Amino acid sequence: MPPKGLDYESLNENVKKVQYAVRGELYLRASELQKEGKKIIFTNVGNPHALGQKPLSFPRQVVALCQAPFLLDDPNVGLIFPADAISRAKHYLSITTGGLGAYSDSRGIPGVRKEVAEFIERRDGYPSDPELIYLTDGASKGVMQILNTIIRGEGDGVLVPVPQYPLYSAAISLFGGSLVPYYLEETANWGLDLNNLRQSVAQARSKGITVRAMVIINPGNPTGQCLSEANLREILNFCFHEGLVLLGDEVYQQNIYQDERPFISARKVLMGMGLPISKEVQLVSFHTVSKGYWGECGQRGGYFEMTNIPPQTVDEIYKVASIALSPNVPAQIFMGLMVNPPKPGDISYEQFVRESKGILESLRRRARIMTDGFNNCRNIVCNFTEGAMYSFPQIRLPPRAIEAAKRAGKVADVFYCLKLLEATGISTVPGSGFGQKEGVFHLRTTILPAEEDMPAIMDSFKKFNDEFMEQYEDHRGYSRM
Amino acid sequence: MPPKGLDYESLNENVKKVQYAVRGELYLRASELQKEGKKIIFTNVGNPHALGQKPLSFPRQVVALCQAPFLLDDPNVGLIFPADAISRAKHYLSITTGGLGAYSDSRGIPGVRKEVAEFIERRDGYPSDPELIYLTDGASKGVMQILNTIIRGEGDGVLVPVPQYPLYSAAISLFGGSLVPYYLEETANWGLDLNNLRQSVAQARSKGITVRAMVIINPGNPTGQCLSEANLREILNFCFHEGLVLLGDEVYQQNIYQDERPFISARKVLMGMGLPISKEVQLVSFHTVSKGYWGECGQRGGYFEMTNIPPQTVDEIYKVASIALSPNVPAQIFMGLMVNPPKPGDISYEQFVRESKGILESLRRRARIMTDGFNNCRNIVCNFTEGAMYSFPQIRLPPRAIEAAKRAGKVADVFYCLKLLEATGISTVPGSGFGQKEGVFHLRTTILPAEEDMPAIMDSFKKFNDEFMEQYEDHRGYSRM
Repeated sequence: MPPKGLDYESLNENVKKVQYAVRGELYLRASELQKEGKKIIFTNVGNPHALGQKPLSFPRQVVALCQAPFLLDDPNVGLIFPADAISRAKHYLSITTGGLGAYSDSRGIPGVRKEVAEFIERRDGYPSDPELIYLTDGASKGVMQILNTIIRGEGDGVLVPVPQYPLYSAAISLFGGSLVPYYLEETANWGLDLNNLRQSVAQARSKGITVRAMVIINPGNPTGQCLSEANLREILNFCFHEGLVLLGDEVYQQNIYQDERPFISARKVLMGMGLPISKEVQLVSFHTVSKGYWGECGQRGGYFEMTNIPPQTVDEIYKVASIALSPNVPAQIFMGLMVNPPKPGDISYEQFVRESKGILESLRRRARIMTDGFNNCRNIVCNFTEGAMYSFPQIRLPPRAIEAAKRAGKVADVFYCLKLLEATGISTVPGSGFGQKEGVFHLRTTILPAEEDMPAIMDSFKKFNDEFMEQYEDHRGYSRM
Repeated sequence: MPPKGLDYESLNENVKKVQYAVRGELYLRASELQKEGKKIIFTNVGNPHALGQKPLSFPRQVVALCQAPFLLDDPNVGLIFPADAISRAKHYLSITTGGLGAYSDSRGIPGVRKEVAEFIERRDGYPSDPELIYLTDGASKGVMQILNTIIRGEGDGVLVPVPQYPLYSAAISLFGGSLVPYYLEETANWGLDLNNLRQSVAQARSKGITVRAMVIINPGNPTGQCLSEANLREILNFCFHEGLVLLGDEVYQQNIYQDERPFISARKVLMGMGLPISKEVQLVSFHTVSKGYWGECGQRGGYFEMTNIPPQTVDEIYKVASIALSPNVPAQIFMGLMVNPPKPGDISYEQFVRESKGILESLRRRARIMTDGFNNCRNIVCNFTEGAMYSFPQIRLPPRAIEAAKRAGKVADVFYCLKLLEATGISTVPGSGFGQKEGVFHLRTTILPAEEDMPAIMDSFKKFNDEFMEQYEDHRGYSRM
C-alpha cells in the first residue's frame, strides 16, 4: 500500500522541518512531570496570567458586559459594574454589527482600527491611517501572514536576529523560505552591529539567496535589549539601500525596565528620516494585547500596521485575511481598550493606573532580581533585561557536561535544562531553540514568577547549578569559552 | 530599482492566485454603498448575529463571568446571574491555568477537549479520544491547518465538491495544491454521484495529479443538501479504496430543516462499517460555534477530531499549532458550553431550550419561505434548503443578459448580482464564486434575514428579477439552458 495522505512519510516536508522549542521537548517533559504530580514552574513562555498575574479590572468589565449585552438593561447592573465600563461597553457594541457574536470585517472593526491609529499618532507624533491597520488573533498570526505573503520559495531569505524568537524560524520553515541569521553581540549587551548584518547578507547572496526582508524584535526576545534611536536609524538606512521589508516586532513596547533607552518605534524613526527614505522603506509593525502589563495572552488579540506598502498588496493581504473571515471580536475590543485606556477623571482611572503601575514596577524589580541571581551563579553570566519578559543567561558548560550530553544524545543546553527541570520543576527553554553561536550555551526563562516566589526560585536554581557544576567540572580549573 | 519585498509583482504567487468570493467584488461594492448611506442586507456570509439573531443567554452569562472572575466574589452577583451560570463559570475557570488571559495548551484546554469527546460519544455511540481533538479559532483555521499538512505542491490534488464553499479553493491555492472538482447533481437535489467522483479522480490522474484527500460538506454549503447514510458509506468506501484522507466539514450539523435525512456524522458511519475500513480511512471532522442555533461567529471557536491518523502526524499537527501558541480561550469555553449545554433540571434549562428551539424553528420556516419565493420567480429554479444556512437558486440568464455582462467585462452572474445589489441592497454571492457547470448561473444567499423581513425581501427580489428578465429577455421566447 502506498502511504496515505496523513501518514508521516507523505506529509508536507515544510511542516516536518518546523521547529518550535518554546513548546518543544522541555515543555512536553514538564507537562508529563506535572501530570505525575510534580510542581512545575512554567517559565517557558511569556504567559503572565498562568503565573498568577491578575487581569486589569476595567477592560475585563467592559468585555464581560459586551459578552452579556442583556445586562446593560438590568436595573442592578450598576451594583457590580462602574458607570464608565458600562458606557464603554455600549460604545463598543455600537461600533460592531451584531456584537461579539458577529464576524467583523476581516481587517477588524473599523472603529477599533481608528482607535489604534489615534494611539499610534499620539505615541509617534505622525498621523496613522486606520485603513493600513489590520487586527489579528495575536501578533504571531499577523507575522505569519506577512511572511507568507513575502516568501515565494527557498531562494527567498529573511534576516532574523540570533538569538531569535522561534516564531520566525518556524514560520519561515513552514512557508518554505530561508532564514538568514544575523548575530546579536552578547558582549555588547545584545546590540546589533551593522557589520554583522552586512556580512550575513553578503553570505546569503553568495549562496544565491535573495534577501527580501529583515526582522527586528524590539525590545528583544529572548535577549531583552532595547534598540536605540541611532541603531534603528542605521537599520532603516540599511533596509532602504538593500530594498528590504522591515518587520518590526514591537510587542514588548510597554515592557521597559531602564530609563536610558525608552521604547521608540521603528515607524517614528522612519518618519523622522525624511525623504526619500520615509516614503520608501516598507515597514510592517506588530503589536499585541498579550504582553505589556495586560498579559491577555489567551484572548489572542493583536494588530499590524503597514507603512509604504502599495495599495494592491494591501488588498492582497485583505483578501487572504478574509479566508478565515475575521479575527476574534472580543480580543478586538481588548485592543481598543489597550490603545484607549481610562483617562484622568474617569471613574476607573485611578484603579487602572494603580493596577498597571503595580505590575510594571514589580516586573522591573523581578528583572533585577533575576539578572543578579544568575550572575551570582557559578559559570553563568547574564545581561540585564532592559525590556521584554525574559532573562537569557549564558551557561558556561564544562567540557565533561558537554560530553555527557553527547552520550545522552542531547544538545548540551537541552541536557542542562532537562536536569534543571527534573531537579527543581523550573521549566525553561534551552538557548539552542533560539539560535546561539557555536559552542556557547544559554537558557531562556521568563521573569514572570510572582515576585514573592522569586528568591526561592533563584535559590533553588543556584543550588541545582552548583551541584551540576560540581559534578561536571574538571577540578583542575574552570572551563572557559 | 528591482521590486521590493511587498511590491505586488514580487509577492508569493500562491497568495495572488487566491480567490475568495464571499468577501469579493460584491461584498466590497456593498460596503461602499453602505458607506454612502444605502441600506444593505448582508446575506453574503452566514453571520446570524449581524442580521439580528440574539445570542443564547446561558453561554454568554458563563463567558461574561469567566471574563470578570472578580464578580464571582461579589455579593450582588446572584442578582444578575443565575446560579448555574455562576457554578459553570467556576468550573471552566478551574480547568484553565490562569483564566481567559492565559495561553492554553496549543491543542486547547484538556477539560474542554474531554467535554467534546463526550459529546461525540453521545452523538455517535462510539468512544472518542480527547487527545485526538484539537480546538481551533473557528473551523476555517482547522481546515487550513490540515490542508497545509497534506499539500506538498501542485502535484497534490484535493477533491472538492462543486459548488463548494470557497474556503477550500482559497486554501488549496494558498498552499500551492490542485483542486480536483467533483460536481454535485443539481437535478438530484445536489446529490453526490459516485460515478462523477470516479471520473474526476481519473481525469486528475491523467494530468499527473496525485489525489490525496477529499472534502465533503454535510450539510452542504452553498447547496444545503444533507448526505444520507448510504451515500456516506459509498464515500468512505471510495476513500478506503483510493487511499484518500476524508475531510468532513460538518459545521452545519445542527442546521437541519427536514426529517427524512437527519444529520449523521462521517465518523459514525465509518465506525459502523467494521474492519478493515473502520481502522483504515483517515478522517478529520470539523465543527464550530459559529453555526447551528449558536451563530457565535465573532468568537472564533471550533474543533477538529482526527480518526485513524498516525501518532507521529498528530504530533506534527500539534507542533505547527504551537507556533501561534493557542486558540483563543473564550471561544474554547463557548465550545465547551455548546457540547455540554444546560440539562433538564438546571435553572437555565428551559430558557436555553426555548431560545434554541425558537431560532431553529424560525430558520426552518425561513428556508421554506426563501425556496418558495425563488421558485415563484421567472427563470429561477431552486432546490429546498435541507440543511445549513443558504439558498442557492439557479438563475436562467437570457442570452442578451450574458452578452451585456460580457460587454461590461463581468461574469454573467456577477453582473446579475451587482444589479440586484444596486436595485435592492441585497448583497449576495454569485454562483461563480462557488463553481458551477459551464453556462449555468446561480447566486447564494443566506436564509438569515429576520423572519418578519423575509416577505418584503423576497418581494423586492421578485420585482428586481421581473424587471431584469423583462429587460434582457428575448421576447420571442424564454431562454432555455
